[in-house]
Amino acid sequence: MSKSLPTRSENYSEWYNELVKRANLAENSAVRGCMVIKPYGYTIWENMQRALDDMFKATGHTNAYFPLFIPKSYLSKEASHVEGFAKECAVVTHYRLKNAPDGSGVTVDPAAKLEEELIVRPTSETVIWSTYKNWIQSYRDLPLLINQWANVVRWEMRTRLFLRTAEFLWQEGHTAHATPAEAIAETEQMLEVYATFAEEWMALPVLKGIKTPNERFAGAVETYCIEALMQDGKALQAGTSHFLGQNFAKAFEVTFQNKEGKLEHVWGTSWGVSTRLMGALIMGHSDDQGLVLPPKLAPIQVVIVPIFRNEEQLDQLTEQIKPLISDLRAKGIRVKYDSSDANKPGWKFAEYELQGVPVRLGMGMRDLENNTAEIARRDTQTKETRSREGIVTHILDLLDEIQRNLFTKALNFREANTHRVDSYEDFKEKLETQGGFLLAHWDGTTETEEKIKEETKATIRCIPLDAQEEEGVCIYSGKPSSRRVVFARAY
Amino acid sequence: MSKSLPTRSENYSEWYNELVKRANLAENSAVRGCMVIKPYGYTIWENMQRALDDMFKATGHTNAYFPLFIPKSYLSKEASHVEGFAKECAVVTHYRLKNAPDGSGVTVDPAAKLEEELIVRPTSETVIWSTYKNWIQSYRDLPLLINQWANVVRWEMRTRLFLRTAEFLWQEGHTAHATPAEAIAETEQMLEVYATFAEEWMALPVLKGIKTPNERFAGAVETYCIEALMQDGKALQAGTSHFLGQNFAKAFEVTFQNKEGKLEHVWGTSWGVSTRLMGALIMGHSDDQGLVLPPKLAPIQVVIVPIFRNEEQLDQLTEQIKPLISDLRAKGIRVKYDSSDANKPGWKFAEYELQGVPVRLGMGMRDLENNTAEIARRDTQTKETRSREGIVTHILDLLDEIQRNLFTKALNFREANTHRVDSYEDFKEKLETQGGFLLAHWDGTTETEEKIKEETKATIRCIPLDAQEEEGVCIYSGKPSSRRVVFARAY
Repeated sequence: MSKSLPTRSENYSEWYNELVKRANLAENSAVRGCMVIKPYGYTIWENMQRALDDMFKATGHTNAYFPLFIPKSYLSKEASHVEGFAKECAVVTHYRLKNAPDGSGVTVDPAAKLEEELIVRPTSETVIWSTYKNWIQSYRDLPLLINQWANVVRWEMRTRLFLRTAEFLWQEGHTAHATPAEAIAETEQMLEVYATFAEEWMALPVLKGIKTPNERFAGAVETYCIEALMQDGKALQAGTSHFLGQNFAKAFEVTFQNKEGKLEHVWGTSWGVSTRLMGALIMGHSDDQGLVLPPKLAPIQVVIVPIFRNEEQLDQLTEQIKPLISDLRAKGIRVKYDSSDANKPGWKFAEYELQGVPVRLGMGMRDLENNTAEIARRDTQTKETRSREGIVTHILDLLDEIQRNLFTKALNFREANTHRVDSYEDFKEKLETQGGFLLAHWDGTTETEEKIKEETKATIRCIPLDAQEEEGVCIYSGKPSSRRVVFARAY
Repeated sequence: MSKSLPTRSENYSEWYNELVKRANLAENSAVRGCMVIKPYGYTIWENMQRALDDMFKATGHTNAYFPLFIPKSYLSKEASHVEGFAKECAVVTHYRLKNAPDGSGVTVDPAAKLEEELIVRPTSETVIWSTYKNWIQSYRDLPLLINQWANVVRWEMRTRLFLRTAEFLWQEGHTAHATPAEAIAETEQMLEVYATFAEEWMALPVLKGIKTPNERFAGAVETYCIEALMQDGKALQAGTSHFLGQNFAKAFEVTFQNKEGKLEHVWGTSWGVSTRLMGALIMGHSDDQGLVLPPKLAPIQVVIVPIFRNEEQLDQLTEQIKPLISDLRAKGIRVKYDSSDANKPGWKFAEYELQGVPVRLGMGMRDLENNTAEIARRDTQTKETRSREGIVTHILDLLDEIQRNLFTKALNFREANTHRVDSYEDFKEKLETQGGFLLAHWDGTTETEEKIKEETKATIRCIPLDAQEEEGVCIYSGKPSSRRVVFARAY
């Protein structure tokens, strides 16, 4: 740690970029728009994966794997789908290199041109539904509840680590059902899973809602989403769950014989979250000193730093600390013991603060005498010296408390930054001065939605699932509206 | 299950292909050479991944993620590496599609041509070492012990499910060290991890050895491998671990300051296993009735099938079976209870036999009276009726015994099919009539190795690590040789 981070108030965007790099989460690679996820960042992602995967399995899903490549003609089969993805996809045209005639290395071999170009998957509906065609014949084959963990590529022109990268990691669930009601129930169930994960694991409160037609997934009948609020007052879409109707079933002729023996098209859903969640996690809680991680996802939950002058003191401290480490690990706590003498304790404290380790234990010679330890909380940046009697239980409670506190803090922030606005003037003023979620009446037209976006960069994040009926008039057009929707500028 | 599998003796290759499909492990996709790994197959792969990942972490490695794409110029930086991979790689040349002028769908947009083509990674040494350059400055940054789970693409012309596919899943470890001794120790340690995994989890005995220069990984100084023997007498390379020397460090200028303050190039290793292991697992143990899975990797370890005539009988059976399921699950056993009435017990028995479920429990009304159950073993195809007293313990023991038995059986098979041969005539005759591992003297030249391969399709699988010094003469050239190497035809 050479110098301190830019502060959030100075430059939020720089603060984020620097934090991602300095906390060893990710960095840009030599390939435009593609990131390297570094070990510390990847461990957080693994913790997220594990929790989500358990939730998917608990709701009856299994994992499978489908090809990276999609034949160009497949992408075209669902009209709005190709419209949505064709403009930003990586295209494989050749399958061999050969030595360059001028000896300057290798060059594409023109003799090895593919008959049909392959698209690196931007999402897998097309390749998966073309497979489901062979897997589904009868109502007995339904529902089909499959998820895949994979990399996908969307050729974004302006990229930011985690938030928007050309290649990213994600999971994509793809399910097939006999009735629209079942498919809609699945779509809603998975939205609920995402919301639970965001709130209970990431400690981020989210709004649940549906997207306007304009913001819908390309090929969906309805897109549900969860939206989180970042500390700079911008929204971040943290997960989506799509009811696909029979669109892909029709495009790929996926039919089943129902109980009455009649052929019908299958009803579909798809749902996904990605490494974008890492961006949400970082921006949701961190501060000017560095990362703040919810204990449930932190790679290191407790770091123990011995404070010593010489080898002998270290040995004495280690002797006392070792059983404590065992006890913590026996409770399932991820503990790191940093006894290296390459760096001073103060340097280490700053480093683990930057890395967002929820609890830090310091122990020096006086603690040895007094049977105490210094416990520091990352979230509140408070510390206290306490007896080592019952310290394991105390730490377990503390980790729970930190998890809860982060959620409460984020919820309070969101509440303080959610405003009902009733005029376009107020809307624009709030957007400029503080951002946040703006609850406003809208006339339901794409035209108005796009005008507002053009003029203010704010988009409709969602129509909240719990929105109350309320008579009002559109802030832009003055036309009647029966409920408020959520506007915000967004990542 | 409409008709029975082809038998292994009739047509081993067809037996394999059909088994992979009928047991719902994988199938070919619409994309040439790329497979779909189906849920049942993928669950086995997940079990493998979990076990391997735990072993990697226990030996100090962490996971990270590097880009899918490699700039063409990177691939060229290590001379023998590009030579090895350029001829079979997928090349991305464009980043956008547009509507075809004739309205026939979408076409590559010529205006969106990449300045430099990108290669879909066939392996990641180049992109990783270009990153390590920035991560390593001092001996304090070493060793760097990183693994990645990823998909890779090698444009194979002749593909077979799991054994050879254009896209496959794997893990690739990439480590950097301060000394050649440390790097070699790492290479050997990871070979040991692979051998332990193959033997203890997959129940497949493996030979550990080093590859001849001719069979070495493109860019390595030394390639270590584990080799397994399939039931048709062909060998299968099940994992490789490479000592890279300073080759990639030099190609990407990765240096570090040693303790004396002098700049040196870093020493590297890489090691990997892939979904090819699925092929080894299937071919290593399965029989003419279907899959045979080692319990440690089986998605379902115990299946329970109630035998009933009506709803009431099913209810009575279920009441007795439910606590048994709980007890087994409490012991960590993966249990399936198949009480569906869509299929008859006989059909179910055949289906779970095909799927290789290690232990099957059948329970009918008489078992209810007698407090018994019928237990069938998949590996020996034997069954017995026993009291339900102590049945959980019995099942736990049985799963262990099946795991051991599969290993012993495979080991006996390998021993029966390993031959010392001392003449080229004998060599050719053994190859034709029974295959297997042939231990023979070889003069150490690539010329002889390639002549033998040309004439017999047998390759040198490895020079075993435990090969004894033994004076002899090369079976082909008659030149002197000081140890036997292992020949075989191979997958």
